[in-house]
Amino acid sequence: MSQTLPETIPASRFETIADTIAEAARELSALGWTPATSSNFSMRVDASHAAITVSGKHKGKLGRSDIMLINLDGEAVGTDARPSAETALHTQVYRHWPGMNVVLHTHSRTQSVASRLYAADGAIRLQGWELQKAISGYSTHDSVLEIPVFPNTQHMPELVARVDAWLDAGKPLHAYLIDGHGIYTWGRDMAETQRHLEALEFLLGCELDLKKLRAS
Amino acid sequence: MSQTLPETIPASRFETIADTIAEAARELSALGWTPATSSNFSMRVDASHAAITVSGKHKGKLGRSDIMLINLDGEAVGTDARPSAETALHTQVYRHWPGMNVVLHTHSRTQSVASRLYAADGAIRLQGWELQKAISGYSTHDSVLEIPVFPNTQHMPELVARVDAWLDAGKPLHAYLIDGHGIYTWGRDMAETQRHLEALEFLLGCELDLKKLRAS
Amino acid sequence: MSQTLPETIPASRFETIADTIAEAARELSALGWTPATSSNFSMRVDASHAAITVSGKHKGKLGRSDIMLINLDGEAVGTDARPSAETALHTQVYRHWPGMNVVLHTHSRTQSVASRLYAADGAIRLQGWELQKAISGYSTHDSVLEIPVFPNTQHMPELVARVDAWLDAGKPLHAYLIDGHGIYTWGRDMAETQRHLEALEFLLGCELDLKKLRAS
Amino acid sequence: MSQTLPETIPASRFETIADTIAEAARELSALGWTPATSSNFSMRVDASHAAITVSGKHKGKLGRSDIMLINLDGEAVGTDARPSAETALHTQVYRHWPGMNVVLHTHSRTQSVASRLYAADGAIRLQGWELQKAISGYSTHDSVLEIPVFPNTQHMPELVARVDAWLDAGKPLHAYLIDGHGIYTWGRDMAETQRHLEALEFLLGCELDLKKLRAS
Repeated sequence: MSQTLPETIPASRFETIADTIAEAARELSALGWTPATSSNFSMRVDASHAAITVSGKHKGKLGRSDIMLINLDGEAVGTDARPSAETALHTQVYRHWPGMNVVLHTHSRTQSVASRLYAADGAIRLQGWELQKAISGYSTHDSVLEIPVFPNTQHMPELVARVDAWLDAGKPLHAYLIDGHGIYTWGRDMAETQRHLEALEFLLGCELDLKKLRAS
Repeated sequence: MSQTLPETIPASRFETIADTIAEAARELSALGWTPATSSNFSMRVDASHAAITVSGKHKGKLGRSDIMLINLDGEAVGTDARPSAETALHTQVYRHWPGMNVVLHTHSRTQSVASRLYAADGAIRLQGWELQKAISGYSTHDSVLEIPVFPNTQHMPELVARVDAWLDAGKPLHAYLIDGHGIYTWGRDMAETQRHLEALEFLLGCELDLKKLRAS
Repeated sequence: MSQTLPETIPASRFETIADTIAEAARELSALGWTPATSSNFSMRVDASHAAITVSGKHKGKLGRSDIMLINLDGEAVGTDARPSAETALHTQVYRHWPGMNVVLHTHSRTQSVASRLYAADGAIRLQGWELQKAISGYSTHDSVLEIPVFPNTQHMPELVARVDAWLDAGKPLHAYLIDGHGIYTWGRDMAETQRHLEALEFLLGCELDLKKLRAS
Repeated sequence: MSQTLPETIPASRFETIADTIAEAARELSALGWTPATSSNFSMRVDASHAAITVSGKHKGKLGRSDIMLINLDGEAVGTDARPSAETALHTQVYRHWPGMNVVLHTHSRTQSVASRLYAADGAIRLQGWELQKAISGYSTHDSVLEIPVFPNTQHMPELVARVDAWLDAGKPLHAYLIDGHGIYTWGRDMAETQRHLEALEFLLGCELDLKKLRAS
């Protein structure tokens, strides 16, 4: 893939961002959360651009040339590469929250199974776990952390509309699941976003384990 | 093992293929999908030959001399090594689909358990998982991906006949399970075949998890 | 973080302790027992000081500057860094048992789930496992190893008081769980404490597995 | 530990054996099958001696000095180190089968849980799994592989007597579980014994998974 940058974006900045994404992707791949070339990761470059992984690559083996530039309408900038259809869900985050700079979307087995199990409820409510405090803004295990589960669709505008509707209803949103699919979460920087993702994977896994054990 | 190549097969081509098989075998062994020297892997060399792993070796420690040449009748070519009985299931794929160039057969715990659980049904039907799209030809989670489960036997012609019968019935086939045994899948190249195998392992694991949780 | 040491503590001693903590933290992080920057680890330096991990860092990536000095009242010594609120639970161990020199607190999924499941009972009783012998003082699988589960709170003095009440009742204590949170355990040196932690994680995992299987 | 060898055992032979044991121990430790310094491993040196791991060491970090020489009565030879009480179970294998040269005893979670679950039955019967063929002498999934589960005791002569009674009854024996404890298995060389151990771990895991799923 060949990438030409706008004059306002120094090559060194794009390279640092691409390397940060590729390193996080290697870590998440090693955890088994990106099976079969799934998942995509992005990082804001400036007020109107982001860098995002191209589709269909093994996420443990990404190089700089597997990260492309897009604008916040989700269109490719300075490259012939075609961004993933799911790009719209990344740019929605960057447009909605000027302070959010990283979006991670993964497909772990726990995430996929939890999304199927709670799809009919429309959300999974987490309460009583100390690790809820790993989500920025939460300071006690007594709080309720609600993660919506949206129906899956191959038509991205429907998903964008569902996320917008949730936000328009004034409900807090730190992450969402898509039924049978995976999770989206975000943060101010890569460290915070990885912490959110790790915490959510852990909490979903705990919740599923507890459900099995309480039935036994 | 000593391997003499036909004049039509350059040594460099055979070595590249052997190295590709050995590298994939190391990755699959590290995932724990090849326990106790089980599993075998092959790759087409030309219209009438394939390279396949010899039996009984630890799949994480294969070298070039652990890969042998066979013809598409499953007979050893240019070597005294004896191919595995299961070679017939590999050559069946190469004879049936001229475009398929890699066959991977593994024995993960998930694959073995799923095969026992669905043996009586004769197949496992996957639907509603985004990762079904990792199988070439599938473009939506709404599709149905059916994986047959054939009875196990130590007599390979019976298994070959069951696969033929499935194909003769005109049903799509991207992989199959053998009861209490493991999975076979294939693809146009190693990357596609590894993607198929990773996706199938993931989907079977999700399906088993969901079954346990829905009962709880 | 800048750390000034009292004259009575040689820099080399503090560095050895910090390196020992950081190495153990890397091992525990690799096992997945410190998700999302959780968990904290400490080691006694002398009769009135201990070294402890600072809050909020990825436990797989700690350096010497991520370990700070505290006194046994849990106050920072020679640094502006603020110790974690949970420091009080570490210093309680050092004050109570002059022979105990290491405290490890982790948050594995098994630990968190077990704590929720047995919170209503107030304790989990382990019996019949050979690995109970890995806890110092236990010489047979026939013994009973009781691990209390205390209610979680963000107010540390409550937790300190519950631990004190258990000890005042004269009951043996080698570790405790906090509901929805994780485990605390300790020992005479790092090797013993890691052995205790590994054994407890194993025993809790076995107990949960057995509970699921006996119900099936 | 200091080790003096009898004149009949060349240092190079003992070192090769010690290195082989230490390497296998590292592999088994990395799989998590030797928690909290548990497990022990041995290898025959000649008709009347074996080398065995000393007690209480982390099995991922063994060096040559952590392997000691014993005679087939289980007594230390040429060293002050005290062999583990469980040494009697290793030497029993070497005395009973002159062709067996390696004994591996591990404590995985699957092994421990399976032993508790099937203790009342006195044995676990495996049938229908292709991987049974990884046990030397088995050539079909249709065979029955019976693994006895003996009651645990801290008094080794009782266990030795139970194993003898099983053998005296003329039943085949390739491995046994001890209730709440772990597994013993053996073979002609390290590769065969590791293959047996891997296969047994896999088969026990499959059997437990299937039991949970069939109940759901």
